[in-house]
Amino acid sequence: MLLADIANLLGGELIGDGNVDLQDVASYEEASPTDLSYVESAKKLNTHSDAGALIVPRGLGIGRPGISAENPRLSFARAVLLFRPPRKFQPGIDASASISETARLGDGVYVGPFASLADGVVVGDGSCVGAGVHIDHDVRIGSECHIYPNCVVYADVEIGSRVILHAGVVVGADGFGYVPDEEGRFFKYPQTGRVVIEDDVEVGANSTIDRATLRETRIGRGTKIDNLVQIAHNVVIGEDCVLASQVGISGSVKIGRGVMMGGRVGVTDHVEIGDGAILGADTGVLKSLEGGKMYLHTPATEIRDARRRIAVLRNLPRLSERVNELEKRIGKLES
Amino acid sequence: MLLADIANLLGGELIGDGNVDLQDVASYEEASPTDLSYVESAKKLNTHSDAGALIVPRGLGIGRPGISAENPRLSFARAVLLFRPPRKFQPGIDASASISETARLGDGVYVGPFASLADGVVVGDGSCVGAGVHIDHDVRIGSECHIYPNCVVYADVEIGSRVILHAGVVVGADGFGYVPDEEGRFFKYPQTGRVVIEDDVEVGANSTIDRATLRETRIGRGTKIDNLVQIAHNVVIGEDCVLASQVGISGSVKIGRGVMMGGRVGVTDHVEIGDGAILGADTGVLKSLEGGKMYLHTPATEIRDARRRIAVLRNLPRLSERVNELEKRIGKLES
Amino acid sequence: MLLADIANLLGGELIGDGNVDLQDVASYEEASPTDLSYVESAKKLNTHSDAGALIVPRGLGIGRPGISAENPRLSFARAVLLFRPPRKFQPGIDASASISETARLGDGVYVGPFASLADGVVVGDGSCVGAGVHIDHDVRIGSECHIYPNCVVYADVEIGSRVILHAGVVVGADGFGYVPDEEGRFFKYPQTGRVVIEDDVEVGANSTIDRATLRETRIGRGTKIDNLVQIAHNVVIGEDCVLASQVGISGSVKIGRGVMMGGRVGVTDHVEIGDGAILGADTGVLKSLEGGKMYLHTPATEIRDARRRIAVLRNLPRLSERVNELEKRIGKLES
Repeated sequence: MLLADIANLLGGELIGDGNVDLQDVASYEEASPTDLSYVESAKKLNTHSDAGALIVPRGLGIGRPGISAENPRLSFARAVLLFRPPRKFQPGIDASASISETARLGDGVYVGPFASLADGVVVGDGSCVGAGVHIDHDVRIGSECHIYPNCVVYADVEIGSRVILHAGVVVGADGFGYVPDEEGRFFKYPQTGRVVIEDDVEVGANSTIDRATLRETRIGRGTKIDNLVQIAHNVVIGEDCVLASQVGISGSVKIGRGVMMGGRVGVTDHVEIGDGAILGADTGVLKSLEGGKMYLHTPATEIRDARRRIAVLRNLPRLSERVNELEKRIGKLES
Repeated sequence: MLLADIANLLGGELIGDGNVDLQDVASYEEASPTDLSYVESAKKLNTHSDAGALIVPRGLGIGRPGISAENPRLSFARAVLLFRPPRKFQPGIDASASISETARLGDGVYVGPFASLADGVVVGDGSCVGAGVHIDHDVRIGSECHIYPNCVVYADVEIGSRVILHAGVVVGADGFGYVPDEEGRFFKYPQTGRVVIEDDVEVGANSTIDRATLRETRIGRGTKIDNLVQIAHNVVIGEDCVLASQVGISGSVKIGRGVMMGGRVGVTDHVEIGDGAILGADTGVLKSLEGGKMYLHTPATEIRDARRRIAVLRNLPRLSERVNELEKRIGKLES
Repeated sequence: MLLADIANLLGGELIGDGNVDLQDVASYEEASPTDLSYVESAKKLNTHSDAGALIVPRGLGIGRPGISAENPRLSFARAVLLFRPPRKFQPGIDASASISETARLGDGVYVGPFASLADGVVVGDGSCVGAGVHIDHDVRIGSECHIYPNCVVYADVEIGSRVILHAGVVVGADGFGYVPDEEGRFFKYPQTGRVVIEDDVEVGANSTIDRATLRETRIGRGTKIDNLVQIAHNVVIGEDCVLASQVGISGSVKIGRGVMMGGRVGVTDHVEIGDGAILGADTGVLKSLEGGKMYLHTPATEIRDARRRIAVLRNLPRLSERVNELEKRIGKLES
């Protein structure tokens, strides 16, 4: 592809020779003379790259051809799609799939081998249901979704449009609740609610989202969830949140809009996390948190205080020695 | 349903007008005038609810119709089943299922699409094997079990009656063990034992329970395990335990009866946890623990001491400052 | 089996009566007179065992028949295979499997019921693809691999020989990356790289290994990964590493050769861990770590210092009280 054409498609401004012929995309360090790459700041330009062309922030001078763009990282992500367009699936229903007579499939739907769709399932236009997926009765799936192989969606779940569920995701399994009965054994608390996954949500491989006890577990529009994440019953997550891998959200937690969670954040049950809160990896949330702030550590603490705490924690043996020394010194003074 | 009939079915005592017509169940806060709800104490009654009727503890006065019961939460859980009866599966073997000629299925069994049952598998009366489940050779499953879609049960596993495995559960995969060989490479330690899951166990979605090295991994009767939990080889868990999501139990751990573990508790290998121990979320167990006590934090510590430790930890920067100040003050005194 | 024959097969030296007839293997404590067991040191011999014969280190006297060996644990692991030989699968393609015309299968391959192999898939000689496995297009699998039921391998993944993927493993799902677009919504960063799993790797049940953004995620030869482990995009793991259950490795991490990680170790993105580093369970890695050392705790610290820190942490309330006392004593001196 010619650099001039790429600049045009990305809506960026051409720098230098537009006839440079590029064949692929690569990271700045690994790029060869036929690769397009990008930088986000001038600092990176101090290190070497063989990239044939660079997408750079507006106003940044580079000694080679390139494209200047408002947001080089976003433009580069779009360029990746130009060089490596995603394989289009062929619509069609695999002959081996098991589809209830009462299921309704939109136009351009793909259903893979050994997928099974139970009574009353609805799948919107252009959605893709991978091999071995099981969709239980009365599930509604919007348009242009991608349900990867071997996912399981329990009954009555509602999934919006452009939702991606990666392989092995389980949506709508029973929430975890029991009541001791008269003989002290666990009576299973019926989990009769449902799950709603709004538009543009993506859920990573082998993550689990439980159905509500009575009403609904809800994942807000645009929220992105990584692999091996647990979302318990009755949880409500707002729009445009990001939950990294191995996060665990306990029952009835309410999470606002635009909340970011690093890997393995854990949240205890029945707390609320305000809009725009940012939780560093491994943060343990034991109480409700105000939005718009950054938190770290367990118990979750605003980042400045958390960092101070971690700094002392790191040198705890020295603190202990200093107390030893103080005791000796004061002993001397006293005697 | 009429309140009087519900009171009758639940074995509770009617309060007020038995002719109130109820249509659904709901939580206290969300209930409408046609909903049945419940409270566990008088305190809750200070907040508003539109519930048409309430299940309440015996002797509690309410200004509306209701039912008085020994255990309102248990009675309400039972009421949920009255209003929202679980969908009955139709027994029958899906034509697409792959079932060995040597497998034996009881009466009233359901086997879903694309399930595969290998040689020598036994499934008891009334059990349900979901779509895409694979049951390997010589597995024995009791009666009235529910194996949700896409579970995998490795060879020789024994499963009791009324066991529930949610979607994606893997039972009987190899334990994790290797021995360095003469060239320093890992020789796979053969995992030739099995897994026994006793009656009334429930296992959450995508959890994993490994087979033993030589003998057995065992999950005791009535034990409840949440999603994404790891149970390693040779672990023995007693009856009526509760393990919340993302718990990890290392190899050869012995857990007594009635042990409760909050989310993401981790237990190191070869330790024992006594009957009735309660471990708060995120507790890290590095040594054996006595039963009948509550523990928290890492390393696991009895709750009173753990809370003291956490309180100091929370204010660690202040402790450090106080040591700074002490050093200054003592320096002054010394000079 | 006669002890003399076993000694011969294992290449160990017979001790005492070679005609002892053994029927099974068992642990030292659980062995009966017809069982073979082993000890690694003289100390263990102080406790009782009914074992009919023991594999012991060279030069160790025992009052019963046995075998002396360089590495008794390794020899015993091999003996387990003699007494309990793994069931051989019968090569063959199940009639129900869905295999693209353009897929190429080697000799002696097994493909189970409801497995699906997409266009361009290659499976080497003697490999076993379990029931319900989905292998997406252009995946290459070497010889003598065992892909257990319901695994999913995304497109373009490359898997070496003698690789074991336990049930529910997902290889090649999209890495977790987004760029905010002009309207502040998340634009999905295309994940167009692949995963390479080298020879002799084993991956535990329900673990997930994401594809790279542009190039490759790589798992080195001989590396062993336990259940429910997360490997993010662009991670490179060296040869002969061991990652225990619930470990989480963030994006672009580089791990050297022979690195050992206990359960639930977490590693932040873009750091490097040197050859032979050993990380205790639950270690949290926030910065790059030198090889050849043992680490513990969060933030990861060399084991001696980490243990000191943990010791102080354990007695933190006492440290706080001592500071209280110092303040009182110094107050008295000052006044």
